[in-house]
Amino acid sequence: MSPVKMIRGASRVWSGSTARSVRAAADELVLVSRISNGITRLQRTMATKVITPENLNPNLVKLEYAVRGPLVIRATEIEKELQKGAQKPFKQVIKANIGDAHAMGQVPITFIRQVLACVALPELIKTGDFPEDVKKRAEDILDGCGGRSVGSYSASHGIELIRRHVAEYIARRDGHPCDWNNVCLSGGASAGIKNCLQMFVNRVDGKPSAVMIPIPQYPLYTASLAEYGLEAVGYFLDEETNWGLDVQELQRAYEKGSENSSVRAIVVINPGNPTGQVLTRQNIEELIAFAHKHRLFIFADEVYQDNVYDAKSEFISFKKVLTEMGAPFSGMELASFMSVSKGYMGECGLRGGWMELLNLQPTVQAHLYKTISAMLCPSVLGQVAVDCVAKPPAPGEPSHERWLREKAGVLRALRERAAMVVDAFNSMPGFACRPVQGAMYAFPRLALPPRAAQAAARAQQAPDVFYAFRLLEETGICIVPGSGFGQRPGTYHFRTTILPQRDVLRTMLDAFKKFHEEFTREFS
Amino acid sequence: MSPVKMIRGASRVWSGSTARSVRAAADELVLVSRISNGITRLQRTMATKVITPENLNPNLVKLEYAVRGPLVIRATEIEKELQKGAQKPFKQVIKANIGDAHAMGQVPITFIRQVLACVALPELIKTGDFPEDVKKRAEDILDGCGGRSVGSYSASHGIELIRRHVAEYIARRDGHPCDWNNVCLSGGASAGIKNCLQMFVNRVDGKPSAVMIPIPQYPLYTASLAEYGLEAVGYFLDEETNWGLDVQELQRAYEKGSENSSVRAIVVINPGNPTGQVLTRQNIEELIAFAHKHRLFIFADEVYQDNVYDAKSEFISFKKVLTEMGAPFSGMELASFMSVSKGYMGECGLRGGWMELLNLQPTVQAHLYKTISAMLCPSVLGQVAVDCVAKPPAPGEPSHERWLREKAGVLRALRERAAMVVDAFNSMPGFACRPVQGAMYAFPRLALPPRAAQAAARAQQAPDVFYAFRLLEETGICIVPGSGFGQRPGTYHFRTTILPQRDVLRTMLDAFKKFHEEFTREFS
Repeated sequence: MSPVKMIRGASRVWSGSTARSVRAAADELVLVSRISNGITRLQRTMATKVITPENLNPNLVKLEYAVRGPLVIRATEIEKELQKGAQKPFKQVIKANIGDAHAMGQVPITFIRQVLACVALPELIKTGDFPEDVKKRAEDILDGCGGRSVGSYSASHGIELIRRHVAEYIARRDGHPCDWNNVCLSGGASAGIKNCLQMFVNRVDGKPSAVMIPIPQYPLYTASLAEYGLEAVGYFLDEETNWGLDVQELQRAYEKGSENSSVRAIVVINPGNPTGQVLTRQNIEELIAFAHKHRLFIFADEVYQDNVYDAKSEFISFKKVLTEMGAPFSGMELASFMSVSKGYMGECGLRGGWMELLNLQPTVQAHLYKTISAMLCPSVLGQVAVDCVAKPPAPGEPSHERWLREKAGVLRALRERAAMVVDAFNSMPGFACRPVQGAMYAFPRLALPPRAAQAAARAQQAPDVFYAFRLLEETGICIVPGSGFGQRPGTYHFRTTILPQRDVLRTMLDAFKKFHEEFTREFS
Repeated sequence: MSPVKMIRGASRVWSGSTARSVRAAADELVLVSRISNGITRLQRTMATKVITPENLNPNLVKLEYAVRGPLVIRATEIEKELQKGAQKPFKQVIKANIGDAHAMGQVPITFIRQVLACVALPELIKTGDFPEDVKKRAEDILDGCGGRSVGSYSASHGIELIRRHVAEYIARRDGHPCDWNNVCLSGGASAGIKNCLQMFVNRVDGKPSAVMIPIPQYPLYTASLAEYGLEAVGYFLDEETNWGLDVQELQRAYEKGSENSSVRAIVVINPGNPTGQVLTRQNIEELIAFAHKHRLFIFADEVYQDNVYDAKSEFISFKKVLTEMGAPFSGMELASFMSVSKGYMGECGLRGGWMELLNLQPTVQAHLYKTISAMLCPSVLGQVAVDCVAKPPAPGEPSHERWLREKAGVLRALRERAAMVVDAFNSMPGFACRPVQGAMYAFPRLALPPRAAQAAARAQQAPDVFYAFRLLEETGICIVPGSGFGQRPGTYHFRTTILPQRDVLRTMLDAFKKFHEEFTREFS
């Protein structure tokens, strides 16, 4: 019995005293109180851990990462229940919450995996039946490894050969030179982003530093800003112009943010996550001019640069635009991030990525590299995947045709599914879904019946979270509510990936539609 | 010309005015001043980066990581000079600065590499010529991966199957149960250590939090504490008792640290890095009792648990001792760290590791796991290596004998070289080197002639840094000066690995001896 219940019990004892002697009741109260104190003491001993929720780093308490939040934890539980034979109205959980392509059945690119196998077990270069360019690549990479083993530490910013290949890739992409010394390999893009954000942990002009982030945003940003105690200043993307950037809104957010903080950097995600837009050159130019005016460091999250589906859209890097705008813009500080987890390769589990640093003050860049060095190095096998992405088989090489076919196949399938998802949502009453021009997600808006909002309030959940939990329990579909990314107050969205394979996606969209109709009926 | 020089020029102009009209001089001054202002403006524009050494996160400026510091940067430069044909008094750089076994010629464990190749390219399970247990292991791991691909994200704390194997490993090692829910996989031990340290970023009782660390220490600790703005409270290990722990010294350090900070945790490295000692059970018990008395969270850095060479020493885990001490000690909070980078496997580049969390308050553990989740997951291939280490081929399985032979071979070679290094240093005048009972390093003390200290002062270097740079330039041997780990004031040490292969090590020790004799002669 808890101390509180004990005390309640004691009150009952006391209030019943009219029928018995006051003395006896008082005795009982003392006894109950003693037991209660004992329990409290015991609880305190049990509870007095060195580290408690009260004295834990408050930034960690505040940190939220919706893509792997309570819904996903529940989805994993349901998977286990299904495995144990539980009866549900569905046969499988569909994890449309996370951009995890291979988990959704996308097949790895053969060239990447062949090179990985050869560097992991170099005897395969001799004994295995692999194309010459695979063997050559494996040999080249091993030449760049200490003791010719991927088990050696690399330099903290990555193997020089691979950094050079990345620089060549960037130069080809943009038509402008790239200095390999400014390319830093990382364990996925997230590690690089966090390292760069950390530079801003400092009060400036007596105010805490702040970073502008889009709303909706990818929650790594709010999570990392919270972790570092940095302020997040959200600027709304404009759903009406397909989640475009609006300079007036940037200005509004900047001014609001500047009241209590020192705004020092701005994050842009292009193609957009969760919003799927591809920025136009004009939009990019506007943002660069805005950042220049307010002296902001630009974080260009460009991990979806290969994922453009809309025929009229084109990925243009911030580096390219900034360079072509000339001085003074071409001298601005920029960090651009890329990953092997997305694109056509989808190698999330390998943890490979890079960042290009532009125009950083050399001492600052040296401090950044030094900080990274304490973590020794990013996974060398992740770096190997980076190499295969930065320098894919060239025309004429034995693996070229297969690589091209596989890459085109993945991107074609994604393009089809992007359209399929958007069409399906736009056919459901109450839904409005912008085209998925790029990336891997749809972010439809839905109108929730007022009674659903009331039911959510009773369940102490945001309405979109309430909806997502119901969807999960009734259909096995796991999505991320818009509140995990941020949305304009009073609007509701969610993010779903376009990654489930065609048949599964069809099943998922049908189940979703049926659920939505029933949900709407129930709460109308 | 700098603005300062310009102004100086203007003063000269002004002071020369007696010989000319004051007016003309004044005109010149105005002109010079205008040019000077222009240059200042230009310089300001050029120099005013958004992020400068002045407004950069000061923790990053403070952070130092000697294992990859200026000496190593210079060593890499020298390697490039040699490649370009530069004439040096040596033919190769020997990087004895870092515990990077494969880079020093150690051969990978076949079982690990075969499993890696099979999970990276699963068609090899069918087409390749691999032992049955390799194929079975690869299949089991792929069953634990989304879409049966190592390119899928795993759970943030790792693949459940592998966490279970780690828990079984720990239970076998200690003879006490281990709950797999408390095992969290990480990208090497460093990532786990940093995640745990971060929990303490909070002021308690109005004072900044502090963590006790051994001196000498592995500089990841000072680097990470600096990064997080946590105070480091050093306790000296006792060189006289072969770098043992002394409770009086612990108490002294605690009291000193408590003056201005709130001491909340203690780090122990066993077997020791850089000091190579293996703690006795009594020493471990004393530390646990001390930590209990002062309510300290214990960080047990046990990454060298397989590296014990001394016949009279034995690795005993903190978890085992704490458990066997019974209540109240068995309820203490502990995090123990392990890695695939060290031991007999030396797979540094794969970035695999784990931590076991003991007795954490469940809400605190949930916050920690949530924080980790924003970084998505550790390298899945690193996790695969963890699996092979936690559950090596069992007796009777086809790979068992080879695995046993390879493991024993690596450890035997390390044992021989540990003795070889210690003997060599103890044969040099001015050196005193404690036995290397475990880990991968010798940490000899050396007496430097007073004139060397004076020369170092002129070069604005610590004497041991001065010595190490001279050694590098004259012999190509790269070691880490003791000041990078911490040492008692007035004493000088350095850390060298015992990893170079026998012949290279012989060459290295001979060159070292010759250098030391000449150095001593020069400065005596």
